[in-house]
Amino acid sequence: MRASGRVRALWIDERAKGAKIDALRTEAAEAGLPVTDVPRAVLDEISEGAVHNGVVGFADGLASTSLRRLLDDVARAGEFPCIVLLDQVQYEQNLGAILRTAAASGVHGIVVPTRRGASLSPTAQRIAMGGAEEVPVIREGMMSALATLRRAGVRVVGTDAHGERAYTDEDLTGPLAIVMGGEDRGLSSAIAERCDAIVRIPMRPSAAVTSLNVSVSTALLLYERVRQLG
Amino acid sequence: MRASGRVRALWIDERAKGAKIDALRTEAAEAGLPVTDVPRAVLDEISEGAVHNGVVGFADGLASTSLRRLLDDVARAGEFPCIVLLDQVQYEQNLGAILRTAAASGVHGIVVPTRRGASLSPTAQRIAMGGAEEVPVIREGMMSALATLRRAGVRVVGTDAHGERAYTDEDLTGPLAIVMGGEDRGLSSAIAERCDAIVRIPMRPSAAVTSLNVSVSTALLLYERVRQLG
Repeated sequence: MRASGRVRALWIDERAKGAKIDALRTEAAEAGLPVTDVPRAVLDEISEGAVHNGVVGFADGLASTSLRRLLDDVARAGEFPCIVLLDQVQYEQNLGAILRTAAASGVHGIVVPTRRGASLSPTAQRIAMGGAEEVPVIREGMMSALATLRRAGVRVVGTDAHGERAYTDEDLTGPLAIVMGGEDRGLSSAIAERCDAIVRIPMRPSAAVTSLNVSVSTALLLYERVRQLG
Repeated sequence: MRASGRVRALWIDERAKGAKIDALRTEAAEAGLPVTDVPRAVLDEISEGAVHNGVVGFADGLASTSLRRLLDDVARAGEFPCIVLLDQVQYEQNLGAILRTAAASGVHGIVVPTRRGASLSPTAQRIAMGGAEEVPVIREGMMSALATLRRAGVRVVGTDAHGERAYTDEDLTGPLAIVMGGEDRGLSSAIAERCDAIVRIPMRPSAAVTSLNVSVSTALLLYERVRQLG
């Protein structure tokens, strides 16, 4: 398994059998690595079409990058930074979809909190076998990251159902960081207070749903930036 | 479990225990219902925050609705129809996220093919316990649906990496059906030939990813329509 960081957990096709799988399970048990048996369809989904052979490993992000260093690199390249901060995004499927959208839309880096989540680490960088991530995932406290962004003159835009204006009415073309809350709770007030603007994604007033999947919300903001940049 | 159609499969939290879960497993076995044990995080994700108590059932869509009847209803309401056709969308997580975006953005109905997919039926309507879907899922052959849409004067827009123009340059404000391909293969040529337009979602040229998650792509088109409708 190729991985750019230390592997923290394995998901194995619940129906996979054979000597290789057995050896992997033994190795994982010896290393104290948590193994979760999941339906193959779940592995297909998080691998996004890449060959996974029934096993997906979750690894830490590239530990060598800090947000501060990343912003310096972007500035040296003469670009406006575009950073995504994910607070409490709990599901690997969402992180996978967000990484894919981020790569396609020109995001320079994703910041996830240092603290650990429920079952699998929410801050793990997904590594499908044979695949490598293009967008660095930086493990850093949200407050520290927000302070770093402020010092670097990056505009921080949060998303919330009660945002002041629609995301399509916000200028997203400059140095930008977008902050996305968790699947259930949205943005914490401590984070919302530190945003330069809070935008909302309009919903049909009669809709019973009150929020979108977080990978969908993230994509709408990132592609609105692409649209505005023309 | 409330369900608007016949339940076709159950996903159960792999760690859930107790008399109720045991009874459910027995009942499912007697009914010949496939049961899949999954990590709780997977159930959380497909339930999108709704209480699931460790069990999610997948049911058929509302069999009483056909695309023809739905279009009639929309016309009687004096609205322009907005329909989503999902060809070969295989993963329940994606269908769940698409249903949520569809409800929020004012989609009138989702059409999924009649044929069956790999493990769980790709055409199953996700029903989280206590939740009900707002957007009807219609099981109908793609070719038949496309013919019905054409007769009703609905513009059919497909999405493909090689589309003629960016989706943001396409007028999406009239009677509209968008057709989304599968996670791996994209639109089949038989379907692409029957589209009035094929649009692409721009990607950073140097990006190694060549496509987005299908629930993300679908959301980008639906919310571009919302933006254009102002």
